[in-house]
Amino acid sequence: MLEQLKEEVYQANLDLPKHGLVKYTWGNVSAFDPDTQYFVIKPSGVSYEEMTADDMVVVDLDNHIIEGKLNPSSDTPTHAVLYRSFPQIGGIVHTHSTWATIWAQAGLDVPAMGTTHADTFYGSVPCARFLTQQEIDSGYEYETGKVIIETFKERKIDPLAIPGVLLHGHGPFTWGKDAQSAVMNAVVLDEVCKMNLFTRQLNSFSEELPQRILDKHYLRKHGKNAYYGQNK
Amino acid sequence: MLEQLKEEVYQANLDLPKHGLVKYTWGNVSAFDPDTQYFVIKPSGVSYEEMTADDMVVVDLDNHIIEGKLNPSSDTPTHAVLYRSFPQIGGIVHTHSTWATIWAQAGLDVPAMGTTHADTFYGSVPCARFLTQQEIDSGYEYETGKVIIETFKERKIDPLAIPGVLLHGHGPFTWGKDAQSAVMNAVVLDEVCKMNLFTRQLNSFSEELPQRILDKHYLRKHGKNAYYGQNK
Amino acid sequence: MLEQLKEEVYQANLDLPKHGLVKYTWGNVSAFDPDTQYFVIKPSGVSYEEMTADDMVVVDLDNHIIEGKLNPSSDTPTHAVLYRSFPQIGGIVHTHSTWATIWAQAGLDVPAMGTTHADTFYGSVPCARFLTQQEIDSGYEYETGKVIIETFKERKIDPLAIPGVLLHGHGPFTWGKDAQSAVMNAVVLDEVCKMNLFTRQLNSFSEELPQRILDKHYLRKHGKNAYYGQNK
Amino acid sequence: MLEQLKEEVYQANLDLPKHGLVKYTWGNVSAFDPDTQYFVIKPSGVSYEEMTADDMVVVDLDNHIIEGKLNPSSDTPTHAVLYRSFPQIGGIVHTHSTWATIWAQAGLDVPAMGTTHADTFYGSVPCARFLTQQEIDSGYEYETGKVIIETFKERKIDPLAIPGVLLHGHGPFTWGKDAQSAVMNAVVLDEVCKMNLFTRQLNSFSEELPQRILDKHYLRKHGKNAYYGQNK
Repeated sequence: MLEQLKEEVYQANLDLPKHGLVKYTWGNVSAFDPDTQYFVIKPSGVSYEEMTADDMVVVDLDNHIIEGKLNPSSDTPTHAVLYRSFPQIGGIVHTHSTWATIWAQAGLDVPAMGTTHADTFYGSVPCARFLTQQEIDSGYEYETGKVIIETFKERKIDPLAIPGVLLHGHGPFTWGKDAQSAVMNAVVLDEVCKMNLFTRQLNSFSEELPQRILDKHYLRKHGKNAYYGQNK
Repeated sequence: MLEQLKEEVYQANLDLPKHGLVKYTWGNVSAFDPDTQYFVIKPSGVSYEEMTADDMVVVDLDNHIIEGKLNPSSDTPTHAVLYRSFPQIGGIVHTHSTWATIWAQAGLDVPAMGTTHADTFYGSVPCARFLTQQEIDSGYEYETGKVIIETFKERKIDPLAIPGVLLHGHGPFTWGKDAQSAVMNAVVLDEVCKMNLFTRQLNSFSEELPQRILDKHYLRKHGKNAYYGQNK
Repeated sequence: MLEQLKEEVYQANLDLPKHGLVKYTWGNVSAFDPDTQYFVIKPSGVSYEEMTADDMVVVDLDNHIIEGKLNPSSDTPTHAVLYRSFPQIGGIVHTHSTWATIWAQAGLDVPAMGTTHADTFYGSVPCARFLTQQEIDSGYEYETGKVIIETFKERKIDPLAIPGVLLHGHGPFTWGKDAQSAVMNAVVLDEVCKMNLFTRQLNSFSEELPQRILDKHYLRKHGKNAYYGQNK
Repeated sequence: MLEQLKEEVYQANLDLPKHGLVKYTWGNVSAFDPDTQYFVIKPSGVSYEEMTADDMVVVDLDNHIIEGKLNPSSDTPTHAVLYRSFPQIGGIVHTHSTWATIWAQAGLDVPAMGTTHADTFYGSVPCARFLTQQEIDSGYEYETGKVIIETFKERKIDPLAIPGVLLHGHGPFTWGKDAQSAVMNAVVLDEVCKMNLFTRQLNSFSEELPQRILDKHYLRKHGKNAYYGQNK
């Protein structure tokens, strides 16, 4: 079942090391199927060399395994919370990519300092707080998802306009319309984290991109007046 | 038409990821044909894996598509302005390469701090200002070209001696006698941006290269007394 | 003899350049056989291109060559001391990997600043002191092993919970249940050294991971309540 | 003539991009033949893809071309001065490798801060001064060699114990018993430049390696009591 989605999720997982976002198996990608309300996710701790598309695990939004011989990623409950709360998204990526993790460890939001950022994220990418002891005890991965939702709700951030988040002390989650675009957003986030760190070091007076440039770049790629690419 | 130039532009576009200057399709190369006064440019948002030489788009200096099934790069009007204003150049490259973009985000000119720089750029590479709201509204990509021209005119910089520029908050444009040399100049610019950032961190008293060394290195490779390479 | 272990040690040595941890032959991996009490180690200064599994050297815990035509790694006595003192370990890796060596040169313990660290190391990775002149004279490589043991004993660190150490001015040693896991721990250590350096630069107020997150991440992968991976 | 040496020089030139030390043709390797007193060097500005072993140029110590259809590297006179003044060396490498060039641009000697350095360089690698206008006018590349010699003479440095130098504002030269070892020394120099820069950033109180450790590491690999490798 969901053979095509399994193939997409499998390929998207392979794209993580290809883009230098993960070492070994330190990452996972999933994709959602709106018809069945199931999602397909990477198995836990299986090496990319041995993994096949057939090893992808099908789970429902209550984290029950629907199909698959292997345990799904230990981060599965986080993915499920995100699919429930952000119904427009079709793919999710979690990595410990170097530069995004550095910002996560520093506990800082990633400001929009350039058009590389503005082409994908319409403003700062937020850093979500640490979980409390109670949240860890009640279900670490599930509560991680809840803290992401809380962050977007409290700060009134649109998850489609800012398709990613940092978890304090941990690393990034990104999402998108499908697995492939979630991977691309993970690539962008890591790259702007690298650029912004060194931008501040080079010129400590560096400021965020003026709002007018942020608007222009985001909106020439996204929304009804977009004119980038071939979908005129 | 212009089949050979299409092939050159196609190959030069492939050279961008090969040299680590772009991820995905975040860059574009064009080349100018003096006979027809047309230029050939990469299509917008097409992945390098799927792209063929045949997908390159032929446009004129007023941005009309002369030949091609696909939309040209959204940065096409910037290229057109540069070909109009700098008639000696034959190729243009735009990227968001990491280190040049960091300097662009910091809003700083790139000083000539070493002979790697001096072999290609005869002095500082300027950083052009942000566009105003009015300029964005009147045509962002076209006005971007105008701001580059303004920068070179106001500062009395020869675009052949300094074949590149940074756009504040955005990234670099470089150019050259053809597409291939424009790519090489993009590689040099990114590398010297990396070197200069860490040079200043290592020794905050580091100064620009003495004028006599800048002269020597630039002029042994360029101009009528050049003796580098095989063109004696 | 020990043909399978030789193959494992050979492959693990090849993994070092594959993961970017060594240039040329600047590293070595060994693995221990509990039955014979011998260990298999890379020969000294042989290039990876020419090396075969058959070139691996079998030595006993007194550093006598049991089998092999080549000299074992000059670091062999350090490996022997570690196998004697940490009887639960099955593999050891020594490298001069860039970021771990930077921390070693700085003479600093590596604090647990993120979950990438906590997934593998249950607290700070210690930096062992320089050897004295007397220790160098009495047997540099052997005494290096003794200083590692001293570090873990004096600080009451469990070598299974913290499977690695830095040597001041030198570089990292890591270990694990076998050669392959020792390599993985070397990869993790280098990566967290990189992340932590830039985390502190980005936000000098960055703190260590809260104890509750450290506990959660370490214990979901290690010990009797671990639920990561396929070994449920 | 000197067919084997040409092959060695050709392969050593190819090793430069393989080890990430050069982009395009920004580097050159030569090797000396004691019998004929000629040396073989890379042609100037020829791309590595097109170059063959046969394109290597044979020159004498007065920079006359003895054999070869192409111009030799523009840095040939620097190589000649070094072979004349350091008669024990058999190979020379010049690059603009990133981290060594950063130290060259900063105008700083590279201190021995770790055993990676001590395994190859028996103390600080010096940074030679800028050339004067008069020296540039009288023959830039020849005088560059003279300034290197001056640096080693005035500071009483043994060129076999410290097989490399930085040129202020330019980049590194390294040498060795043959072309291959000169390349390895270039790799080491670039790596320790990277490590030392970040070591100082991580801990500004970081000091040079204690003399006893420097002695131990250098002398276990070099000189009559060396015991590293297979040449017991």
